[in-house]
Amino acid sequence: MRLRHKPWAKEKIESYPQYVIGNPKQYYGKWCTLFDNGFPVHIEVGTGKGRFITEMAKANPEINYIGIELQESVIVAALDRLIDAELPNVKLINTNGEDLRKFFAKSDVERVYLNFSDPWPKKRHEKRRLTFESFIQVYEDVLVNGGEIHFKTDNRGLFEYSLMSFSKYGLLLTYVSLDLHNSECEGNIMTEYEEKFSAKGHPIYRCEVKYQNKLD
Amino acid sequence: MRLRHKPWAKEKIESYPQYVIGNPKQYYGKWCTLFDNGFPVHIEVGTGKGRFITEMAKANPEINYIGIELQESVIVAALDRLIDAELPNVKLINTNGEDLRKFFAKSDVERVYLNFSDPWPKKRHEKRRLTFESFIQVYEDVLVNGGEIHFKTDNRGLFEYSLMSFSKYGLLLTYVSLDLHNSECEGNIMTEYEEKFSAKGHPIYRCEVKYQNKLD
Ligand SMILES: C[S@@+](CC[C@H](N)C(=O)[O-])C[C@H]1O[C@@H](n2cnc3c(N)ncnc32)[C@H](O)[C@@H]1O
Ligand SMILES: C[S@@+](CC[C@H](N)C(=O)[O-])C[C@H]1O[C@@H](n2cnc3c(N)ncnc32)[C@H](O)[C@@H]1O
Repeated sequence: MRLRHKPWAKEKIESYPQYVIGNPKQYYGKWCTLFDNGFPVHIEVGTGKGRFITEMAKANPEINYIGIELQESVIVAALDRLIDAELPNVKLINTNGEDLRKFFAKSDVERVYLNFSDPWPKKRHEKRRLTFESFIQVYEDVLVNGGEIHFKTDNRGLFEYSLMSFSKYGLLLTYVSLDLHNSECEGNIMTEYEEKFSAKGHPIYRCEVKYQNKLD
Repeated sequence: MRLRHKPWAKEKIESYPQYVIGNPKQYYGKWCTLFDNGFPVHIEVGTGKGRFITEMAKANPEINYIGIELQESVIVAALDRLIDAELPNVKLINTNGEDLRKFFAKSDVERVYLNFSDPWPKKRHEKRRLTFESFIQVYEDVLVNGGEIHFKTDNRGLFEYSLMSFSKYGLLLTYVSLDLHNSECEGNIMTEYEEKFSAKGHPIYRCEVKYQNKLD
């Protein structure tokens, strides 16, 4: 995502702690105290401008959503959406997805969404892909047993890589579409990137994978 | 594949036992005696008119190929190719892929090719798909440990189904292309169906999966 320097972004983020959680460590193992309910927590890593997570939160009031976004200059756009929408079940954290273990205990999360993650096509940047081994381990460490990753992208190379990566680390492929917008996909909520790339005629790839209980 | 009734097909097949093996059971566990060498055996299930297997045999003289094709009226076209090509390392069997265990012992085969298999899109025909559970078990029973399936198709539904099926039965995805003809695919040998469908602009899907050693 293009970086525009927004010096005021940090200040704005800090002035809305009810939306962008300032000290997420305090909820480690007890996210129910933040949301004040026992609903499952779904997170999106690389939330961008927040269209997906906000619309998901509207459509599914019995799920708590947390968007994880690294860039201050991008998360402010998501924050604007949250301010407008005034929803009780969606929050943001301005952090790197590789640090999820600091904020979430094992089983704090029921599902991870990855949408149009940066492809990092060069082999030497493989480690930055959100479906690289180290990330797959991070997600496992915060998810419930049998927890899921739902992944969408228009990037063929990243999708191919991710299918192999999921297979290699033992995740079960429970759903795959190689052309989402020409499949039955009732209730699909488009992300910003999805709107852009599907309008250009790119096929959208989508899959769901599941961590398998290691004791099975 | 369209069935034209060819009453002479059976007779022709029987008159070329050096190409279409009449009694494949006799080689159970000892295919090296047929080929008179110790080279690996790769089979293609649903060979059709035999373009792929004949060209593969030309390109890879140190592999023995066996094409399995159910329909007499189709296998005769493959037979014609073999008669023309006069290759020592390619044979045909006129049988159903579900019967492979009758002809091949465990480890007789190193690789299974599936190319443009009939999609059988209706759920009630699922059992006929060559990547249905029962077929995946058959292949395992004739392959070496760590044996591979290489699968190509233009049929999106069948490819999606097959990726899930491979995952469900524990096969490791070691290669996947969601647009083979726009990927690096040096040495790709096109099948009859591949020529037809890629000319129409359909993307060709391809993957390689591997049975994992159960003792690992
Ligand atoms: C290509 S954008 C897609 C945004 C949005 N998901 C969509 O589909 O419209 C990817 C986003 O992921 C963020 N990102 C990339 N790596 C990240 C990481 N390790 N942790 C958190 N966010 C990350 C980027 O800052 C960027 O905003
Ligand atoms: C769609 S054609 C593709 C032929 C060729 N592989 C190609 O790519 O051009 C599928 C072929 O598989 C054969 N076939 C289907 N099910 C089979 C089975 N269970 N055992 C053997 N052959 C089968 C059909 O008779 C047909 O010739």
